[in-house]
Amino acid sequence: MAYPQQSSIQTTFAPFSFWNRRRTVVRKNTLLYQLSVLKKTGRYDAFRLKWHPIYDDEDPLNWPVPKHLFWDSDVAKWIESACYFLREEHDKEIDDAVQELVEMIGKAQQPDGYNAGHLIEAAYIHHLHYQNDLLLRPITKYISLLSQTFGPGPHQIHGYPGHPEIELALLRLYSITHEPTHLSLARYFITERGNPHGVDGKHFYSAEAEKRGEKLMERQNPWPKCRSFWYMQAHKPILEQDSVEGHSVRAMYLLTAVADLVRLDEESKNYSGNANGNDSAITTPNGGTQTTATPYRDPLHRLWHNMINKKMYLTGGIGAIHQWEGFGIDYFLPQGTSSGGCYAETCASIGVMMLAERLLQIDLDGKYADVMELCLYNAVLTAMSLDGTKFTYVNQLASSEDEEGGKDGGAGDGGNGGSSLSKREAWFEVACCPPNVCRTMGILGGYVWSHGEDEGGVFVNVHLYTSASLEFQAGGGQKKVELKQESNWPWEGDVKFELKTSSDIPVTIRLRIPAWAEGYEISPSLPSATTIQKGYLTLPPSYTSHHRTFTLSISGFTPRLIRPHPYTASDIVAVARGPIVYCVEDVDNPWVTNHFRDVAIDTSVPLRLLEVGEKIGGKEEEEYVAIKAPGAGVLLEKEAEEWTLFGGGKKGGDGKDKEEEGRRDLVFVPYYARANRGGKGMMRVGLRVMR
Amino acid sequence: MAYPQQSSIQTTFAPFSFWNRRRTVVRKNTLLYQLSVLKKTGRYDAFRLKWHPIYDDEDPLNWPVPKHLFWDSDVAKWIESACYFLREEHDKEIDDAVQELVEMIGKAQQPDGYNAGHLIEAAYIHHLHYQNDLLLRPITKYISLLSQTFGPGPHQIHGYPGHPEIELALLRLYSITHEPTHLSLARYFITERGNPHGVDGKHFYSAEAEKRGEKLMERQNPWPKCRSFWYMQAHKPILEQDSVEGHSVRAMYLLTAVADLVRLDEESKNYSGNANGNDSAITTPNGGTQTTATPYRDPLHRLWHNMINKKMYLTGGIGAIHQWEGFGIDYFLPQGTSSGGCYAETCASIGVMMLAERLLQIDLDGKYADVMELCLYNAVLTAMSLDGTKFTYVNQLASSEDEEGGKDGGAGDGGNGGSSLSKREAWFEVACCPPNVCRTMGILGGYVWSHGEDEGGVFVNVHLYTSASLEFQAGGGQKKVELKQESNWPWEGDVKFELKTSSDIPVTIRLRIPAWAEGYEISPSLPSATTIQKGYLTLPPSYTSHHRTFTLSISGFTPRLIRPHPYTASDIVAVARGPIVYCVEDVDNPWVTNHFRDVAIDTSVPLRLLEVGEKIGGKEEEEYVAIKAPGAGVLLEKEAEEWTLFGGGKKGGDGKDKEEEGRRDLVFVPYYARANRGGKGMMRVGLRVMR
Repeated sequence: MAYPQQSSIQTTFAPFSFWNRRRTVVRKNTLLYQLSVLKKTGRYDAFRLKWHPIYDDEDPLNWPVPKHLFWDSDVAKWIESACYFLREEHDKEIDDAVQELVEMIGKAQQPDGYNAGHLIEAAYIHHLHYQNDLLLRPITKYISLLSQTFGPGPHQIHGYPGHPEIELALLRLYSITHEPTHLSLARYFITERGNPHGVDGKHFYSAEAEKRGEKLMERQNPWPKCRSFWYMQAHKPILEQDSVEGHSVRAMYLLTAVADLVRLDEESKNYSGNANGNDSAITTPNGGTQTTATPYRDPLHRLWHNMINKKMYLTGGIGAIHQWEGFGIDYFLPQGTSSGGCYAETCASIGVMMLAERLLQIDLDGKYADVMELCLYNAVLTAMSLDGTKFTYVNQLASSEDEEGGKDGGAGDGGNGGSSLSKREAWFEVACCPPNVCRTMGILGGYVWSHGEDEGGVFVNVHLYTSASLEFQAGGGQKKVELKQESNWPWEGDVKFELKTSSDIPVTIRLRIPAWAEGYEISPSLPSATTIQKGYLTLPPSYTSHHRTFTLSISGFTPRLIRPHPYTASDIVAVARGPIVYCVEDVDNPWVTNHFRDVAIDTSVPLRLLEVGEKIGGKEEEEYVAIKAPGAGVLLEKEAEEWTLFGGGKKGGDGKDKEEEGRRDLVFVPYYARANRGGKGMMRVGLRVMR
Repeated sequence: MAYPQQSSIQTTFAPFSFWNRRRTVVRKNTLLYQLSVLKKTGRYDAFRLKWHPIYDDEDPLNWPVPKHLFWDSDVAKWIESACYFLREEHDKEIDDAVQELVEMIGKAQQPDGYNAGHLIEAAYIHHLHYQNDLLLRPITKYISLLSQTFGPGPHQIHGYPGHPEIELALLRLYSITHEPTHLSLARYFITERGNPHGVDGKHFYSAEAEKRGEKLMERQNPWPKCRSFWYMQAHKPILEQDSVEGHSVRAMYLLTAVADLVRLDEESKNYSGNANGNDSAITTPNGGTQTTATPYRDPLHRLWHNMINKKMYLTGGIGAIHQWEGFGIDYFLPQGTSSGGCYAETCASIGVMMLAERLLQIDLDGKYADVMELCLYNAVLTAMSLDGTKFTYVNQLASSEDEEGGKDGGAGDGGNGGSSLSKREAWFEVACCPPNVCRTMGILGGYVWSHGEDEGGVFVNVHLYTSASLEFQAGGGQKKVELKQESNWPWEGDVKFELKTSSDIPVTIRLRIPAWAEGYEISPSLPSATTIQKGYLTLPPSYTSHHRTFTLSISGFTPRLIRPHPYTASDIVAVARGPIVYCVEDVDNPWVTNHFRDVAIDTSVPLRLLEVGEKIGGKEEEEYVAIKAPGAGVLLEKEAEEWTLFGGGKKGGDGKDKEEEGRRDLVFVPYYARANRGGKGMMRVGLRVMR
């Protein structure tokens, strides 16, 4: 089963499509912009291995990690992004930079660094694009060293990385090298993780800390208490973990690797028996069912569901806590710094997309694609300005005044690019997010659909709607299959399909019906009563052979109110339409003060779409559908200073809101489009419901 | 102006009064019970200074503080409590224990310990009760040593305690000794605190840490980041502090001392000029006005208002965060562990009472007494079982399942006695709270009213209502004044007063009208139209000389709904009546599961009092007024597992609650009475409002 990194090349986005517009911005602006920053900040030249004063930082932001230790990952992700886009369209400046970087990396070869993962991913696509081994060779050599160093043997270190990433990269690399050590090293890192007695009867990290001479109470800032190994998902073996904990990016990268290991093991039947009956109805990508599972399937699903049900924001963001850039307790999801937390790092939601995509490969269930789409259009897309040159790292759901980093998860950390205002930055000291968005745009086609072939013919599972075409070979390269979709997604729900095959090969197409859809129609209609199986509508060969063009109409594009789980104890609703989650900004609601904290919404007022002529944005590629709620904005009396605990703010309190005179219109724009048009940086997704 | 510790002896509670019942429980049960625990746990014998294995704890709960370091404060508070009650009624066993302890302390004399404060307080009352210096002598010797050791001199340490307490004790001691070093040492500790360059250009705590050889990243568990000096209110000088931060007990003890220093300085005019015009309308205890203020008055009021408006729970509890047992950011007030925090330590609300009482001495404003009353009847009184032998340390507003200590402020810390269930413990490893409740009960009479004498005669300011009498000498001991109040407070609002004086001395009486009161009447009525001045109704000598008995009727004893500030983003209301805040418990609402998390309240249903016959409790001294809301309990659909982010739980979400069939009655009992009658430990103060 192909990885998006691999299959994305088979997809071409139509020129007028939403995603082609966004990807063109990345190709034309972002790649070159990021290259200039890599050079300016010293990251580019780091591979020359010459000492530079900037490396000599005695008080690094992320003690005990010196700041340059993960610079290679920034460069690696940029190389990776560049290769994806170079495959589509040549660019001399970008091409030259890739070649120079690769030459430097080759010369710099030595065993070091924990971000080997991103270098492996870059090496993989570099190999495919340049058809040479100039990057792959030093990387596989590096992996050999790692394989010798880490493992179960008596003279090996029984360890694993602090920041998972190499595992998922090794598994993907294995799919082209079929080199057993690539699989076994990944497996070792996954299974050894969290072993309480791995090194001389001690936890690996404890043993390492002792070796470094660290005292028990000496610990890095992200750890609230000493030895907070849950920060890196190593508090216990993955098989025993019940809830998703710690640094959210690490958790997602780790689980993506676990999912891929499950897929590999189940494909090769490389496991013993059915671990548990819980997942008896697994749907394989070709629509079959599978009733056995590897032991890692249970924790994988357990942790996924814990996250989706209890630890995910309405935008698809994850991670409420600033201190460890990760998960809080169940249902702890404040919207921003001023209400006690919200991190929702860009990379973390990219990680959710990665994990969802792998999960779809082992169990074709629309619930994974729903979350993947939610993250893509909201928590991830919001991280890049419409012109592709400014970024966010933290993606809060409500702004607040910029202050000294809060104690309770405030995001005001300059080093990590956090700001409590809704605003974008040119770059970050820890710069993982901008190139990560870039490479996600690079491989986006691979997320849109997946396909395969079995005894019944060819199948295509369509996860996302846009305007694009997919083209691939089947029948041992003898037959060509092309599927084209055309739509005005995410603004309208009609998707027109056209299927072309060079022969009479049977084609099954499965179309995702989103969870938020109010209904759907397929035209021409299916002959018999159809049911949706786990979120997908199946068009069998009998249908596709008769109807080479057909249209899916999804309804659900009238604005709707969404709200977080009642256990979040939040008195809020947000506006959504189709896959898009909306927010209010001070640019469109200039009467606002205090970051909409004094504003409630009267939910009895109907939401209406702004007409096309009222679209906000100006340039065509920046157009989006806005929503207006005339007179729904309720200003609450400013009673902060006179509030008392004795009568609910007023004597004889009845628990009702005290409303100031004069209703206001509320104008909503897509969350992803926030912080693009100036303003004071005031923004909010969830508004208090008027009582 | 007398301290409650001093003036309490002038008050006698009537046998049938609410507070006499509670204080009798303390005298009969709690003192002896606590004595047995002090003996059992080794605290009693610690003053023998013999080594015991229990002292040799290599992994203390509160690193770097060994566990026995503050045991002397537990003993000191018990001695203090014992003395208060011994003054009222002799008890041989208690008396013997006090005498033995004092003998041990005298013999053990050596310079040590940061909790000198509690020993000073015990010494003070011991001196008054036993009329000897057996405890006061070693303590003043101890203070001499401290005065030599700490101070601004070149050979002195420019330091101050990590846990403020000695300051307030020194100031009180000064009121009897008039020894200048007692005042100057307290003043030095207060003014030097937070000096960024106090020791060799460094912060005192940094210099000390370096002296101990601590690395920068080595830190105690309560500190989320290194050098979190705000934990002990030393991040900057008090004069520059804008918000109340850190460990809440430390903050309250410190500010109580600051308030007392302000009072002393203003009485002696020992300050230069008016710091700021903000407090131009200060009302002195005799009803006069004062327009100048010491520089410490501003920060004192700033920090008080920050706390009351933004960091106090509906119960008068303070401190949302478990990790540092203290304040979160403004308006961060989750009700319990499962919603992200809530600590509300008993000692902290005792500290609020202490501070409020001192503030009343420098500015007679009912807003301080309102908070004092709120804390007393709710956050403080809830900390002791009705039989006086079981205690709480953490006082959450909602229970949740007991779990491993939460990362985000969960209270499940066995060592500190925290439990996420609503339940009581026999004792705690850190045992500050139980004896602190005890001594507060001991001096309660001193909180009820304060009095004084000036050129206009005698005045009595009545802060709290109960059934009690006050007796004191005026006119240089020549004249006796007696004021008696009789009421069924906190259940009914009529308070009958009787004034007796041995002469024709003019008496002014000021009666507090609570903020929660809906109205009041005084009978016989006052001749002219009266206004309430800052929460107090003044009865001038012309009235009191004609009416030796009069009745104040406060209305506000119909149940009302209260809610936290909207910025807390909490969708809740609570029930209150008079000064009492209520909660629901599973004992009275046995149909409940999941700690009332799935329950909303329909606020349109009227609350009604349970009839006397329906009073819950059984024994007379445990009776209280319960409240019932028939059919107001709404069960929300259990959708935790099926909740999706795509339609507010249900497709086409409208933001409304999905209600399960069948309404339930809700029965409320006073929060202080919770966890006395068994049950599953499920309890909640604030219920979600049905949408």
